[in-house]
Amino acid sequence: MGHRVAVYGASGYAGGEVVRLVDAHPDLETAYLGAHSAAGASLRSVHPQLGGGERVLGPIDPEACGDVDLAFLALPHGASAPVGVALAERGVKVVDLGSDFRFATPGAYTAAYGTDHPHPEELGRWAYGLPELFGDRIAGSDRTAAPGCYPTAAVLALAPLLAAGAVDPEGIVVDAVSGVTGAGRGARADLSFGAVADGVRAYGLLTHRHRPEMEEAVTAFAGTSVEIVFTPHLVPMQRGILATCHARWRGGGDPAATLRDAYREARFVEVIDEPPQTRWTVGSNRCLLAAYLDDRTGRVIVLSAIDNLIKGAAGQAVQCANLMLGLDEGAGLSVAGWMP
Amino acid sequence: MGHRVAVYGASGYAGGEVVRLVDAHPDLETAYLGAHSAAGASLRSVHPQLGGGERVLGPIDPEACGDVDLAFLALPHGASAPVGVALAERGVKVVDLGSDFRFATPGAYTAAYGTDHPHPEELGRWAYGLPELFGDRIAGSDRTAAPGCYPTAAVLALAPLLAAGAVDPEGIVVDAVSGVTGAGRGARADLSFGAVADGVRAYGLLTHRHRPEMEEAVTAFAGTSVEIVFTPHLVPMQRGILATCHARWRGGGDPAATLRDAYREARFVEVIDEPPQTRWTVGSNRCLLAAYLDDRTGRVIVLSAIDNLIKGAAGQAVQCANLMLGLDEGAGLSVAGWMP
Amino acid sequence: MGHRVAVYGASGYAGGEVVRLVDAHPDLETAYLGAHSAAGASLRSVHPQLGGGERVLGPIDPEACGDVDLAFLALPHGASAPVGVALAERGVKVVDLGSDFRFATPGAYTAAYGTDHPHPEELGRWAYGLPELFGDRIAGSDRTAAPGCYPTAAVLALAPLLAAGAVDPEGIVVDAVSGVTGAGRGARADLSFGAVADGVRAYGLLTHRHRPEMEEAVTAFAGTSVEIVFTPHLVPMQRGILATCHARWRGGGDPAATLRDAYREARFVEVIDEPPQTRWTVGSNRCLLAAYLDDRTGRVIVLSAIDNLIKGAAGQAVQCANLMLGLDEGAGLSVAGWMP
Amino acid sequence: MGHRVAVYGASGYAGGEVVRLVDAHPDLETAYLGAHSAAGASLRSVHPQLGGGERVLGPIDPEACGDVDLAFLALPHGASAPVGVALAERGVKVVDLGSDFRFATPGAYTAAYGTDHPHPEELGRWAYGLPELFGDRIAGSDRTAAPGCYPTAAVLALAPLLAAGAVDPEGIVVDAVSGVTGAGRGARADLSFGAVADGVRAYGLLTHRHRPEMEEAVTAFAGTSVEIVFTPHLVPMQRGILATCHARWRGGGDPAATLRDAYREARFVEVIDEPPQTRWTVGSNRCLLAAYLDDRTGRVIVLSAIDNLIKGAAGQAVQCANLMLGLDEGAGLSVAGWMP
Repeated sequence: MGHRVAVYGASGYAGGEVVRLVDAHPDLETAYLGAHSAAGASLRSVHPQLGGGERVLGPIDPEACGDVDLAFLALPHGASAPVGVALAERGVKVVDLGSDFRFATPGAYTAAYGTDHPHPEELGRWAYGLPELFGDRIAGSDRTAAPGCYPTAAVLALAPLLAAGAVDPEGIVVDAVSGVTGAGRGARADLSFGAVADGVRAYGLLTHRHRPEMEEAVTAFAGTSVEIVFTPHLVPMQRGILATCHARWRGGGDPAATLRDAYREARFVEVIDEPPQTRWTVGSNRCLLAAYLDDRTGRVIVLSAIDNLIKGAAGQAVQCANLMLGLDEGAGLSVAGWMP
Repeated sequence: MGHRVAVYGASGYAGGEVVRLVDAHPDLETAYLGAHSAAGASLRSVHPQLGGGERVLGPIDPEACGDVDLAFLALPHGASAPVGVALAERGVKVVDLGSDFRFATPGAYTAAYGTDHPHPEELGRWAYGLPELFGDRIAGSDRTAAPGCYPTAAVLALAPLLAAGAVDPEGIVVDAVSGVTGAGRGARADLSFGAVADGVRAYGLLTHRHRPEMEEAVTAFAGTSVEIVFTPHLVPMQRGILATCHARWRGGGDPAATLRDAYREARFVEVIDEPPQTRWTVGSNRCLLAAYLDDRTGRVIVLSAIDNLIKGAAGQAVQCANLMLGLDEGAGLSVAGWMP
Repeated sequence: MGHRVAVYGASGYAGGEVVRLVDAHPDLETAYLGAHSAAGASLRSVHPQLGGGERVLGPIDPEACGDVDLAFLALPHGASAPVGVALAERGVKVVDLGSDFRFATPGAYTAAYGTDHPHPEELGRWAYGLPELFGDRIAGSDRTAAPGCYPTAAVLALAPLLAAGAVDPEGIVVDAVSGVTGAGRGARADLSFGAVADGVRAYGLLTHRHRPEMEEAVTAFAGTSVEIVFTPHLVPMQRGILATCHARWRGGGDPAATLRDAYREARFVEVIDEPPQTRWTVGSNRCLLAAYLDDRTGRVIVLSAIDNLIKGAAGQAVQCANLMLGLDEGAGLSVAGWMP
Repeated sequence: MGHRVAVYGASGYAGGEVVRLVDAHPDLETAYLGAHSAAGASLRSVHPQLGGGERVLGPIDPEACGDVDLAFLALPHGASAPVGVALAERGVKVVDLGSDFRFATPGAYTAAYGTDHPHPEELGRWAYGLPELFGDRIAGSDRTAAPGCYPTAAVLALAPLLAAGAVDPEGIVVDAVSGVTGAGRGARADLSFGAVADGVRAYGLLTHRHRPEMEEAVTAFAGTSVEIVFTPHLVPMQRGILATCHARWRGGGDPAATLRDAYREARFVEVIDEPPQTRWTVGSNRCLLAAYLDDRTGRVIVLSAIDNLIKGAAGQAVQCANLMLGLDEGAGLSVAGWMP
């Protein structure tokens, strides 16, 4: 008898991935699937790759899911706040994959998103869903905001070094590349195969909202404010993020050893001795890290690779749900990847 | 307590995929991993994407695996025959993913491969490992030769129509496209990214060895010899085969209905009403079929899509092993795929 | 002093390619660029890859181009007919890359497109713009309808063999693959990178409008009606078409020799002795052919590779324009391609 | 009557691209093509995409080219030094696309390559072939070492800002991504399609030899030594480099304006107002730059995009040759690119 879960936003990339993981999970089962424009359609028609396709999507209505133990929200910016609050108030545990509850204060939210938060009283009540760093908080919470994909990669790379005082909190540079599934599933001319294949572009220069999220998440570890210059790039692949993180080294041991110590108990973070390829993480909930200290310039580079749809979204959400439901943290999640 | 299995040829694409599937299988565990040039290396170094990477590869020696219940062979043409026979004579069940035991007679083998078979007495003793069509034979056998990737796609598409007498056994055309993992994992200039990306080529014109294999496999269903013109094409993708199969229609009902009848009990073959995309099968053990009857020309087109490394190789091998070991046919195999 | 040309539909893939070719042409210059929704925008903003980007796009208005010698139309189905007729009546030579004037009779048009032709009196007055087969007609015409991309590849492969009576006009099978630029430049979810990469699909089963176009074009050479089963496939590449064409061999020599004879004077068609790769044609106006005769089955396979945007669209249009303007047929067109 | 040129190393990616550009050049013609292992083969067999394929490749012998005006060398590290010196001593102008003559001193060479230079007396006699920055030197030289692909992108981005004293010469970070043609054309398992597609990796961490080359090239402009942390990444595309360059801003105007001033006369460098995509440069000799000043952190980001085989190799070599031969700098080179 598994826990019954709802998935709101099941028609997108992240939502479909949540359905796939829940279907393969030994202790969870989907009790409700909701979608906006795809409401009324079969799961098969929106995700032909999934089995069990006869299930029909319902509306994005917090009442519609009936009696469930936990709900995953994979909704656009701004859309998850009302649904999440309504579900939480009904006693449903909520894991929000969206960005509405990632900041701890209304001010931080407004600075990043330019609008007032619709439920400012909720901020601070949601755990930040990065289990390797905030696991106890998540396990004790009924409301979790899973991190953005880029912050997942960058924060796992930087937090232990900042916590150890080994790197300078000023002047951090994060250049990251992502596959296209990070941009969502809609019809956009700039994301057509003809506009993406065989090319690379930077985007969101200086303005990407994952930058303040990263800064807030690592600040707790640094004990002081942290300043990051973050530049995301789109590359022609489906899945994967590689974050190349630069910081000034303050000395004190070996960065790889510091990372290994920090993640000794973490089954989904591994520090390796060669540059991690995103391909090695695709299909897996793993984050692979490698660190390089440059004596010449006094700089450290930390490379961080994840599957943006799994450790960067659906897998991490399931990992949080496992903690919130008292299950084994890794239940239903794979360490092994797919490539090729 | 699972069955202990060996994987010979664990360093290639198909062998690595067998390891991944066995690691995730509820009733199987790897007891031995063997490789040629990678003998002595860790699994991690040859398949960084897999977990459990501390296992070390041993040699391609049928004695080296010790006491196992079943062995998977993913070895090059000609290399599996001696290993497979030695293992079988020791009482180990064998599933050969290679091509050494797919033909029923030495003559057919020699016609296709141009050399004498090293163990002609074995031919006829090996089941042809396509469970949807030869399941009883496989379940009762201790030696199974899993089909080639292209024959899997084409034979599943054509056999039921030939068995029903609905199509002409002469003049069949199969044009198929495959991702690059079908060509193996070695270093070849013509398979470099720079030589494959953004292009398509046909290859093996009139001479590909999967053509006689297809013909032999469907002949049993047609009750007469079948003549196929088979042209494989390489396209820039990792996994997937799409076979576009043409035959003259002899009348008698609807081709999709005939296929649905034939695969009513088959959980890994599904007949759908739109052209199947290879992406819908990637990561899955499914074969997706669709049939189109052209009244204007009296021709039927059957489209058949599989993941060449799963239903076309490792997944099918596990499906065969399940039958041979008395397990549930679908144990450890996924209907759901991964894309996007 | 070059000929002044207009390009209507300059914002799409084919139109942009016409602009690129005209800009590099020794005897042509763009005097007017028109577009629908992009009217008013700079060329740079719609085609950042092109130089000379300060030119501004005007409307799709046949009067707007002023005094030009020739107009290229790269407009959607149905949109080029009124523009083309208006321009032609003003004495402007027209090369239409669209499909409105490819059929010789209103009946054929209606059978393919399901609607009446808006200018039935024009059909029959437009040359079919395949210079290697209809060069004299094109040179003497002021109105040319450039062929579709798939018909270009298939008709060049089949016409000489049909003309020689060497293949059976019944039971011809053409399976072709195309890159995504063949599907145009709009925002479509099914053409997003995430929906196209790493996969293959067939589409337009039995209904694609290039099939009757092919049949009509080759019928003139066969001297009798020709029946083709045509199945297009979408593969994850930008440019390129490979048509794999099957026919029953009636005997009479060697198919490659027949093709070589037919194209002895054609500088943009080459018959080679190995399977042509689309990559070898990308950036070039060439069509590469190879023929394989299968004695076993009495079948011939002709492989035909082109760049769908050049020989299949813009390059062929320029080749036609060269003939219509009395220029060297190959002016401004490259035999050499770009790959790798 | 054009200048006669030789191309040594014509079988690789860069060499083939030189042949393509020379064939299309109004004032140059190939008089000799040399190759190592491909000596004796036809150009067609090694570059099927090129026209004029009947030419046969000769050996890598400086005597074999006969009487030519200029030789392009596209040879592996270490192989161009003896050939280049022998040709230069015969009075042949030389443009070396390789790395043997890029450093000004034997010490810098040895620091980067770990071996003594075979012709230390030659260092300092070769112009550094970046025409926008060293044009006069190149025009007056008979020996030019064309820059590496990454240095081309990074040096064009950084040199004007360093020259203006606008950025700090310490703490510069260059994260760059490249398509696979930058890694050459040999058979390597790690560059197979199956190992590259759908993934990203960093490589050459802290040790890539283009880093000291960049530092030496910009030092002349900074007037002081410059320290760069350079991390290259491989992405699944054929051509293109995007360098994301970070530096501390020292103030003094606007970085984009400084770049525009510096390249006012440069027809192949353009400063634009949005993030440049590599696709916009593919097929072109252009470098596209964009600069972003972050008031929050006091950092500037300069994005620099090129086609690694054209502006990063063959196109730049032809641009140098044009200067050395007294031709128009842009002869035979395209501003317009190919994409889509």
